[in-house]
Amino acid sequence: MSDTSRKTALNPATHTTPPAKFSHGVRKGGILQVAGQVGFLPAVPGQPPAPAGPTLREQTLQTFANVGAVLREGGASWEDVVMVRVYLTDTDHFAEFNELYDAHFADLAGPPPARTTVYVGLPAGLLVEIDALAVLD
Amino acid sequence: MSDTSRKTALNPATHTTPPAKFSHGVRKGGILQVAGQVGFLPAVPGQPPAPAGPTLREQTLQTFANVGAVLREGGASWEDVVMVRVYLTDTDHFAEFNELYDAHFADLAGPPPARTTVYVGLPAGLLVEIDALAVLD
Amino acid sequence: MSDTSRKTALNPATHTTPPAKFSHGVRKGGILQVAGQVGFLPAVPGQPPAPAGPTLREQTLQTFANVGAVLREGGASWEDVVMVRVYLTDTDHFAEFNELYDAHFADLAGPPPARTTVYVGLPAGLLVEIDALAVLD
Repeated sequence: MSDTSRKTALNPATHTTPPAKFSHGVRKGGILQVAGQVGFLPAVPGQPPAPAGPTLREQTLQTFANVGAVLREGGASWEDVVMVRVYLTDTDHFAEFNELYDAHFADLAGPPPARTTVYVGLPAGLLVEIDALAVLD
Repeated sequence: MSDTSRKTALNPATHTTPPAKFSHGVRKGGILQVAGQVGFLPAVPGQPPAPAGPTLREQTLQTFANVGAVLREGGASWEDVVMVRVYLTDTDHFAEFNELYDAHFADLAGPPPARTTVYVGLPAGLLVEIDALAVLD
Repeated sequence: MSDTSRKTALNPATHTTPPAKFSHGVRKGGILQVAGQVGFLPAVPGQPPAPAGPTLREQTLQTFANVGAVLREGGASWEDVVMVRVYLTDTDHFAEFNELYDAHFADLAGPPPARTTVYVGLPAGLLVEIDALAVLD
């Protein structure tokens, strides 16, 4: 059991290495911040990061899995998340994304987190990025 | 009085229903996060959400009102806000937005929150989105 | 020594005046939020804010310095930062930015913060904006 009062990096073993010197998540005390996650599949040694597929659906499901893995690494779950930031690249994706979002949170115990969604540029081939802030007891 | 140590959803009665399974705000302990608010008028049963008007001024004033309602729902006020995130769609709106912003915060007791402003895409017809992080005693 | 349990504005003496009624940073209790910083040089009385130079490198280095000054003003350091939000304007800047980022954090004691990077619009002439969330003991 790690000392949660100290700042701790959260880097799930299956995650790809970040493209710069940052952590996939950080916990310090009761605050857990998940870095922007995209739809990269689990890391394959010797190969560059690759998204789960070209579609919004494939990437969104993988992105949720990646955020969830960071939460678990920090001893948290989706129930602890207070804010989800969603970055999409195309306003035409909003309806489909919301269907996937609702399905993901369908079984959540307790109130769903707050959310902000904006449309930005992302690296070529990526359609969605999500980060999250959790507050633990 | 709700138990503020538990995660609580903040959804003012007059707010339109979110387009997906998220809360307009969440409070857990001393952290209150307001979801991205836009210039939607109070909900009218049976009608889709509609912005206060087509102009930056109308939408900004309504957006401030909507953020404020979520803060109040969580027992907070603008004085508790430490960070405001502003999403505009056009750099030409910066000067007018800042005038409205200054007027909004003119009577604030104590130091104004921090702020980040960036230019992004928003759903058609929307010119401004704002979210906020508050820290309560 | 200020009373860190109260909301305190963090505005380093050398920083340019914000373009609206917001603080360059705010600390309340253990939470310190740095507002979006850009590559503006130290303020020169009677002159408008000016970036350190036209290049990504010049602006990024100055932006790091500006974020760092706000952290110090609040009694914090980069070691306390849990989240860095990076706003770039061009995906072609990613590799060069990451080199500068890695150099900045090379000597950091302890785990690096989480990070989200997205591509947005910024005011003319600005190539990078960074804000940061720190959690203090």
